[in-house]
Amino acid sequence: MSISQAYQRIKSLKVQGARNIAIFGLDTIADFINRKNWKKKDKFLLDLERAITRLKSARPTEPGLRNALNYVLKQAKKGEDAEECKKLAIEAYKAMKKDIKESLKKLVSVGVRRIPDDGVIFTHCHSSTVTAILKEAWKEGKRFKVITTETRPKFQGRVTAKELAKVGIPVIHIVDSAARFYMNDADLVLVGGDAVTADGFLINKIGTSQIMLVAKEARTMASAAVETFKFDPGTLAGNWEPIEMRDPKEVWENPPKGVKVLNPAFDMTPPNYIDFMITDVGIVHPYEARTVILDKWFREGEQ
Amino acid sequence: MSISQAYQRIKSLKVQGARNIAIFGLDTIADFINRKNWKKKDKFLLDLERAITRLKSARPTEPGLRNALNYVLKQAKKGEDAEECKKLAIEAYKAMKKDIKESLKKLVSVGVRRIPDDGVIFTHCHSSTVTAILKEAWKEGKRFKVITTETRPKFQGRVTAKELAKVGIPVIHIVDSAARFYMNDADLVLVGGDAVTADGFLINKIGTSQIMLVAKEARTMASAAVETFKFDPGTLAGNWEPIEMRDPKEVWENPPKGVKVLNPAFDMTPPNYIDFMITDVGIVHPYEARTVILDKWFREGEQ
Amino acid sequence: MSISQAYQRIKSLKVQGARNIAIFGLDTIADFINRKNWKKKDKFLLDLERAITRLKSARPTEPGLRNALNYVLKQAKKGEDAEECKKLAIEAYKAMKKDIKESLKKLVSVGVRRIPDDGVIFTHCHSSTVTAILKEAWKEGKRFKVITTETRPKFQGRVTAKELAKVGIPVIHIVDSAARFYMNDADLVLVGGDAVTADGFLINKIGTSQIMLVAKEARTMASAAVETFKFDPGTLAGNWEPIEMRDPKEVWENPPKGVKVLNPAFDMTPPNYIDFMITDVGIVHPYEARTVILDKWFREGEQ
Amino acid sequence: MSISQAYQRIKSLKVQGARNIAIFGLDTIADFINRKNWKKKDKFLLDLERAITRLKSARPTEPGLRNALNYVLKQAKKGEDAEECKKLAIEAYKAMKKDIKESLKKLVSVGVRRIPDDGVIFTHCHSSTVTAILKEAWKEGKRFKVITTETRPKFQGRVTAKELAKVGIPVIHIVDSAARFYMNDADLVLVGGDAVTADGFLINKIGTSQIMLVAKEARTMASAAVETFKFDPGTLAGNWEPIEMRDPKEVWENPPKGVKVLNPAFDMTPPNYIDFMITDVGIVHPYEARTVILDKWFREGEQ
Amino acid sequence: MSISQAYQRIKSLKVQGARNIAIFGLDTIADFINRKNWKKKDKFLLDLERAITRLKSARPTEPGLRNALNYVLKQAKKGEDAEECKKLAIEAYKAMKKDIKESLKKLVSVGVRRIPDDGVIFTHCHSSTVTAILKEAWKEGKRFKVITTETRPKFQGRVTAKELAKVGIPVIHIVDSAARFYMNDADLVLVGGDAVTADGFLINKIGTSQIMLVAKEARTMASAAVETFKFDPGTLAGNWEPIEMRDPKEVWENPPKGVKVLNPAFDMTPPNYIDFMITDVGIVHPYEARTVILDKWFREGEQ
Amino acid sequence: MSISQAYQRIKSLKVQGARNIAIFGLDTIADFINRKNWKKKDKFLLDLERAITRLKSARPTEPGLRNALNYVLKQAKKGEDAEECKKLAIEAYKAMKKDIKESLKKLVSVGVRRIPDDGVIFTHCHSSTVTAILKEAWKEGKRFKVITTETRPKFQGRVTAKELAKVGIPVIHIVDSAARFYMNDADLVLVGGDAVTADGFLINKIGTSQIMLVAKEARTMASAAVETFKFDPGTLAGNWEPIEMRDPKEVWENPPKGVKVLNPAFDMTPPNYIDFMITDVGIVHPYEARTVILDKWFREGEQ
Repeated sequence: MSISQAYQRIKSLKVQGARNIAIFGLDTIADFINRKNWKKKDKFLLDLERAITRLKSARPTEPGLRNALNYVLKQAKKGEDAEECKKLAIEAYKAMKKDIKESLKKLVSVGVRRIPDDGVIFTHCHSSTVTAILKEAWKEGKRFKVITTETRPKFQGRVTAKELAKVGIPVIHIVDSAARFYMNDADLVLVGGDAVTADGFLINKIGTSQIMLVAKEARTMASAAVETFKFDPGTLAGNWEPIEMRDPKEVWENPPKGVKVLNPAFDMTPPNYIDFMITDVGIVHPYEARTVILDKWFREGEQ
Repeated sequence: MSISQAYQRIKSLKVQGARNIAIFGLDTIADFINRKNWKKKDKFLLDLERAITRLKSARPTEPGLRNALNYVLKQAKKGEDAEECKKLAIEAYKAMKKDIKESLKKLVSVGVRRIPDDGVIFTHCHSSTVTAILKEAWKEGKRFKVITTETRPKFQGRVTAKELAKVGIPVIHIVDSAARFYMNDADLVLVGGDAVTADGFLINKIGTSQIMLVAKEARTMASAAVETFKFDPGTLAGNWEPIEMRDPKEVWENPPKGVKVLNPAFDMTPPNYIDFMITDVGIVHPYEARTVILDKWFREGEQ
Repeated sequence: MSISQAYQRIKSLKVQGARNIAIFGLDTIADFINRKNWKKKDKFLLDLERAITRLKSARPTEPGLRNALNYVLKQAKKGEDAEECKKLAIEAYKAMKKDIKESLKKLVSVGVRRIPDDGVIFTHCHSSTVTAILKEAWKEGKRFKVITTETRPKFQGRVTAKELAKVGIPVIHIVDSAARFYMNDADLVLVGGDAVTADGFLINKIGTSQIMLVAKEARTMASAAVETFKFDPGTLAGNWEPIEMRDPKEVWENPPKGVKVLNPAFDMTPPNYIDFMITDVGIVHPYEARTVILDKWFREGEQ
Repeated sequence: MSISQAYQRIKSLKVQGARNIAIFGLDTIADFINRKNWKKKDKFLLDLERAITRLKSARPTEPGLRNALNYVLKQAKKGEDAEECKKLAIEAYKAMKKDIKESLKKLVSVGVRRIPDDGVIFTHCHSSTVTAILKEAWKEGKRFKVITTETRPKFQGRVTAKELAKVGIPVIHIVDSAARFYMNDADLVLVGGDAVTADGFLINKIGTSQIMLVAKEARTMASAAVETFKFDPGTLAGNWEPIEMRDPKEVWENPPKGVKVLNPAFDMTPPNYIDFMITDVGIVHPYEARTVILDKWFREGEQ
Repeated sequence: MSISQAYQRIKSLKVQGARNIAIFGLDTIADFINRKNWKKKDKFLLDLERAITRLKSARPTEPGLRNALNYVLKQAKKGEDAEECKKLAIEAYKAMKKDIKESLKKLVSVGVRRIPDDGVIFTHCHSSTVTAILKEAWKEGKRFKVITTETRPKFQGRVTAKELAKVGIPVIHIVDSAARFYMNDADLVLVGGDAVTADGFLINKIGTSQIMLVAKEARTMASAAVETFKFDPGTLAGNWEPIEMRDPKEVWENPPKGVKVLNPAFDMTPPNYIDFMITDVGIVHPYEARTVILDKWFREGEQ
Repeated sequence: MSISQAYQRIKSLKVQGARNIAIFGLDTIADFINRKNWKKKDKFLLDLERAITRLKSARPTEPGLRNALNYVLKQAKKGEDAEECKKLAIEAYKAMKKDIKESLKKLVSVGVRRIPDDGVIFTHCHSSTVTAILKEAWKEGKRFKVITTETRPKFQGRVTAKELAKVGIPVIHIVDSAARFYMNDADLVLVGGDAVTADGFLINKIGTSQIMLVAKEARTMASAAVETFKFDPGTLAGNWEPIEMRDPKEVWENPPKGVKVLNPAFDMTPPNYIDFMITDVGIVHPYEARTVILDKWFREGEQ
């Protein structure tokens, strides 16, 4: 698939979920690298950077994709000539892909321990990481209920509800506005995450931050399951995570004249509204996000 | 229209809005009283009570309707014979209807003074009281923007957006989950209300209480516009305001097996999340709700 | 019984509970008045005031007693001669006693409506007002559990536990320190009260204020059941409710040298930690305490 | 002493205090290892693991004991044959014992610097770590008062009061419920700790978390003195610290029928209610607990 | 003195303090009324209204002055002819003046009871009401310290410091920015007030609201001493209390180009940051401000 | 310049700003070392320590100066003889000076990314680090306004206002007490810092902590720009950062008798009131201060 086609698939949400997008992006780039033979190092690196920049721009708020592709480029640049650069890039591609695939398994083994038996878990939107934890905990014999929000405008909460109900987990489904109405019934809020910044903010589906605030108000434990490949090294240098503004038509097909529809896809939850994060390196409090980023992207032999 | 037909119209939301429902209920009862001649006082009061009980049950959370009809019954009971009872009932009907109609005008004159010029007002759902204030303020020359939430599951926020845009007020329209994302841009939250309890809780459309919490978190002034005929005397005696659970199909037409959809129509905002209420007797803090109830329903010559 | 004997019985906790103490004090004073014939108005009022002052000093923090006796004195002073003073005093005595007795019944009818069916109620110490509400609610068919704290140093919480268990109410009994551990399981905190000040502070058994704080932290509804005869008119004039310091030996029989044991019997809960109060005049928020005091002691024809 | 006897001594509280229990457990295991000659590595490790598992089960909430014994087992497993395994186990035993003994001294030297001269310190229960800091600070010439809670149900607060009074420190002793009453008089809350989790929760005697909340409410500095050998590596993997439920009879010898007594020995204080922790590696905020755990148990050459 | 001269004296701060300004304004109007004989009722009322409007405009945020003059006008309008109008105006003038004068005495008798013996009181700016309370409490034998802020830009805190030191009260004087540094040492914050709104906001010298917030954060009791003639009836109808913006030169004589100096004279403290208000009708919580306004200006025989 | 002269220049604020003071102190010490030839190692180290101790005492709250000089001494002590000690001291001097100079550049590149375009930044006092960020952001084309407080008693806020206005940045200048009045208009609070403790407290100009509290109350992002050489290693061992009490005459030249003026130069902001810190090693949350201290002063090859 060409870079442009891949860009379109990501942009149009044909590929969805931070994990899937990152792997799809990596595969696209590996394909791109393998398809051609470069003679000159400079030319190869220039072409690679362009392809990567293009792919990253498909979704502004996808640090998983961004981090993975940046890592491939960074490693490629260490080569002496075109051939070595290419080799290093492919090695980096394999390492990242392995990391992304294995991280889920590790994360799930941590997460299941935090699922309360006979409890009620509150979740928002659809996160394959969250459903993986819940389904594994259910398989291991824990019994619980899950409250899902519908998650306007795209109703991804219905996907969560279906997926959980299918394996027998009892689900209560509500509108997003009813979060505070039912929060006192929940024992744990568990959401996914698209990114974590160096100062501990969680970027996740619009509505997450008010659910976390509502959990705080009710002294309900609030957590997020996020793989470390989503911890954004760019925020260490001061960048803010950009927030993608999506098509207003997702919210209202034909709004009347004079009505401007705004459709931010994500919001930022401050670290003090989160009790813990479930990651592939164990339980982490968001205030330690910077240390996780340093360990992940800078310290450990550059991965 | 028969009591049964009226009951159906209210239940199916053909008549909507606390004010409209109360007036519709009053008119139905007046019609019922005028249609027949009772000989016996006891029989008249029995029939009247049955009709009123039936009408009230159409919407559990409609203290405006309930308060108005209860008042008619209470006055009717003071008569010596059927004729006098009927006369007193009709007088009470007229008094209540006048009160409901005039209360809006008084309330609006108070409310417009609280609309900040060049400010941003955040509202939720559709409240004819709120739109009346905003349209009057606009007419008097104040300039401001309004943020409206779509208000799932029935999208009443679109009604608000349309109504305001029609008179030229600039509207920003968002999903309910984006309230916290935009709250720092707002100068005032202004919502309507279906009931106020003796201990100061505001009953309003599901989602209101989390918007008010989000306003509190951001030090944005939070207010509600509520006519005093909605201040519920029953709560003084300890009753909680019942919360209507509506048809799950409003939320999800065909949920999969194992998914239970819950659809509460209202929630309760605690008084400390509200800075002031705009009423027909002026600015009132919800902590004074009990005094308002005593003045309205018990002290002033029984109205 | 002589004033001195009565004083001793109150001081030594032979008579306990705000209601019982007030009635016992009233009966003692009625007895005192009836035992003798005064000729001179001045002498009568002087003797009466002395007796009342003595009785009131038996428990510094008992506004119920204080309010009742002050009312008798105030009414007595309106007489022209000794005989009329005496007559007015006896009338006042009867009115107060009736008020105290009837207030419980009225309060209970309000309170039962606030007991959640299938809920968990958290209480502290022993309050006959609270147990009356709970037993009545149980009798009317509501089903719930009650968490009782042991209430050091006098273990009055065991009295509550026994009394409730006797009628079949399931009781969970914990040390005072475990309040926060179990608060998330409770739907309602319900305590009694010894006094309410004009600015809305609740004076109740030591430990109440931290339980109410813990309830606030967990968004658990917090309430107090207090008869209006305990709303202290003296605080309107700026007085603080005095806090009785009891015998250190209640806490530790023989503390080692160098250890000073302090044993305050009550603490003050600020009004914003209380959601509502259940009283004989209905649901009242503590922020309306001043209005209740004015209505009770000053406005309504001086009772 | 046999493993069973040692188990009994720990279970029955004959050995008390996290530090004492850990050392006692270590000594028991060393004794166990030295008593016999194993030929086969597998058999030795099996026996060792059984003995350790048995000992750990004596108190569910004792990560100090658990961490120390786990470390011995982990090191033992690195040997090639039975002899080397044994040797490594004994070396690990000595290292852990030294660490536990020295950690107190290091911690105290940090802690004394945080004791305010002419201040008031509030403590709960009995912690030999806390009393060591206070006595050392007093010895160095600092002057202060200490408020001790009695700490139901076992009155360990009396032990603290006696121990401090003995060296001349003025002590004020109160019931647990009076914490909020006296908190505004305190400059520093200082408690001990049984465990710290990877997400920063402090596990300590029941009642600690509400005292810390009360300190937060009053802007009183809140701290805990905890040696790093109590920082629980198991929580990194997602486990919750188990909370020991002790014999109800400690609370109420003969509760009436229908009254269920619950007696949790510990509670969890969230990290944001703690200003700092005093440890053997210096001042640590609980939000850095994960880093401390990694440094202690995983990074530094496996100790 | 002419209306214009009086206007100038108020505007230039030659007359200062809400009480002094109100009395000065009343005297000016009485003088104005007495100076001339009007024949026509209409002409008299027109002239009176113009004079009053002019005087009120001298200080936008002075509800004491505004309320007093509005009352005179309102009473005057009840007359049948010019003579009677004049007579009623003079009677109203006398009543208001008496009220203002006597209110201080009543308020002080309430306030002294709230001054803690051996405590530390924190105040801001200069309020003659506050210093009257403190001096009276000192005279009655209470002993305490007072912390005064300097109160930029006009340093009125120095006036307070001098006045209190003169009678022997020990004073600690700090910059406004040090409020949080010293708040934990204070037992009570006591400030004056220029106005109270129907929804309970206190309008007082700039800086008051952040001091009250700082008191809340430290669980230090926060109070304000405000006479009821400053409770603003205009806010009942929805008006906000206007905030006077004073001359930037008070802050910075010659700011450089590009620097805009803003000098608001007052700020608004929300009612939940205030524990009680000391008034001439006793202790009042700001949430009851509306009731006080109704009692003062509308109910009690129109004063 | 002699040590005494340098001491005087620092003490009298002739040299100001943490960075300038640290560099000035380093230069003074280098000068001192170079001026003389020591024969004996012991004598050299003794003289060096005395000189350093003297210089450090000029400003108690200047960890930048203290940390830099301590580092020179620590390195000097590693030499074998006087000559080597001297050489190592000079090398350490150069390294520290380079670090201090380069840290600003790195920090600014991080900070500019956090300046919101079209936003309002609120700052306090004068920090050359903060103005460097703001001026660089302006130069790069971002457009914003800055609110500066005057910062009593020394009016350093005017220096900030002048410096920013000079390069064209629009400035709004207010008294310190008006922080809460304008906080809702700000998008970001950005202050400098004199020290950061191991437990995350920020030491900065008096008033900072209440501004940060006011920012928290309004959900305005709050940040501090602090170079890592100001992160105080001494606090790791339990020391509190001392707070310098300056000359009362800076506040009030001639206070009346009985008025004690207190003039603390700094206050402590707790870590939970700060959203992020901008440093030369990137974005850091104050809860990670201990890790930064370990990395800076102990781990990385001792710098």
